[in-house]
Amino acid sequence: MSVTPTPTHDAVAIAAAHDDGSDETPVHGYTPAKAEYLRRLRRVEGQVRGIARMVDEDVYCIDVLTQIAAVTKALQAVGIGLVEDHLGHCVVDAARESPEAGAAKVREASAAIARLVRS
Amino acid sequence: MSVTPTPTHDAVAIAAAHDDGSDETPVHGYTPAKAEYLRRLRRVEGQVRGIARMVDEDVYCIDVLTQIAAVTKALQAVGIGLVEDHLGHCVVDAARESPEAGAAKVREASAAIARLVRS
Amino acid sequence: MSVTPTPTHDAVAIAAAHDDGSDETPVHGYTPAKAEYLRRLRRVEGQVRGIARMVDEDVYCIDVLTQIAAVTKALQAVGIGLVEDHLGHCVVDAARESPEAGAAKVREASAAIARLVRS
Amino acid sequence: MSVTPTPTHDAVAIAAAHDDGSDETPVHGYTPAKAEYLRRLRRVEGQVRGIARMVDEDVYCIDVLTQIAAVTKALQAVGIGLVEDHLGHCVVDAARESPEAGAAKVREASAAIARLVRS
Repeated sequence: MSVTPTPTHDAVAIAAAHDDGSDETPVHGYTPAKAEYLRRLRRVEGQVRGIARMVDEDVYCIDVLTQIAAVTKALQAVGIGLVEDHLGHCVVDAARESPEAGAAKVREASAAIARLVRS
Repeated sequence: MSVTPTPTHDAVAIAAAHDDGSDETPVHGYTPAKAEYLRRLRRVEGQVRGIARMVDEDVYCIDVLTQIAAVTKALQAVGIGLVEDHLGHCVVDAARESPEAGAAKVREASAAIARLVRS
Repeated sequence: MSVTPTPTHDAVAIAAAHDDGSDETPVHGYTPAKAEYLRRLRRVEGQVRGIARMVDEDVYCIDVLTQIAAVTKALQAVGIGLVEDHLGHCVVDAARESPEAGAAKVREASAAIARLVRS
Repeated sequence: MSVTPTPTHDAVAIAAAHDDGSDETPVHGYTPAKAEYLRRLRRVEGQVRGIARMVDEDVYCIDVLTQIAAVTKALQAVGIGLVEDHLGHCVVDAARESPEAGAAKVREASAAIARLVRS
């Protein structure tokens, strides 16, 4: 957290890596997608905390429900993004390796998609 | 549809092929998966007709809702099956052709999965 | 369908009864909501039949999935409409009868809503 | 957290203040249902944080998706519980007040239920 890089010729690179991440959690060397997922999940976490606060402060039930529907959608959207990334990397890579490897990954991904559709 | 086979030595084979399908739609030469989808969709169609009959006969609302939830699940299950087949054939084949072709099919499949999750 | 009643003193009554319903299913004396539900369910039934036809004619999988998502939504919309009617009639009437009767209907309705949300 | 206030005349006030909000949060004066919702929402919040950690630690995508489906269900279950409470209190009370008040609350609740079903 409190990284204070000694001013060497690496400082710029370190600072740049540092900038990639968000305020609280420095994310270095990750794919941009990962930083984006973390940002969205942190937002969902804050929204869930907000729902708890609404319940705690006796906010009108219908407004709490509206927020629950919104957060559910946000969480599912993260799931859909992860599915797309998984298909585009793991499944495609396995398929290029061998038809059998591809088929195994497809079966596994389909079961995960089914859980998402049913949730 | 209106097949009237002349009584030759092929008649038994034709009748057998005919039996594979259902009453209304003879299904020949299809993959077993396709025949199975048609069977399930015909069942869903009959269930929707049953729901209409329930409404028409003033069946208690809660029982109609239970049936609507069941049919929605059956329809989504067909969708999930189609997703698995699509990933296992179109997407895997495209991935084996080239990374670019794979990526395009993954994008398209993910959009379809998103529509299914949100429905 | 092409009923041409002989012009007797019953003709007006027959025509009136005929007008109430749709082509296939004459609907008499029902609330407008009921006729509307039947119309929507008959439409869903036709859409499911259309999906089966798409599968049968080897229409591209993604297009079949798009249609499945649309029909699932249409079916859920019928369910949501029925929930609203049920709350507005059965549940409200029970609540006005006694708190206990209201509570029992609320429990039953909530279980049905839960099945709909999870489907 | 492990505050052991010296027994002064402020001790009672401190203890009371302490009770208001800790991480687990002793909940006073609330209906048991409210305390239970807060407990469940705090659990969901922890699960979302857990998902972020999984992403951060490059846990296998399919396992992250399984967890997302589970948390989505948990959040929807809170929503379903709130719907039941809302129907049992606000809607039933309004219905007992007047048919018009009941009808208005039913319309509002149905819209919230629809958002939940579609999420």
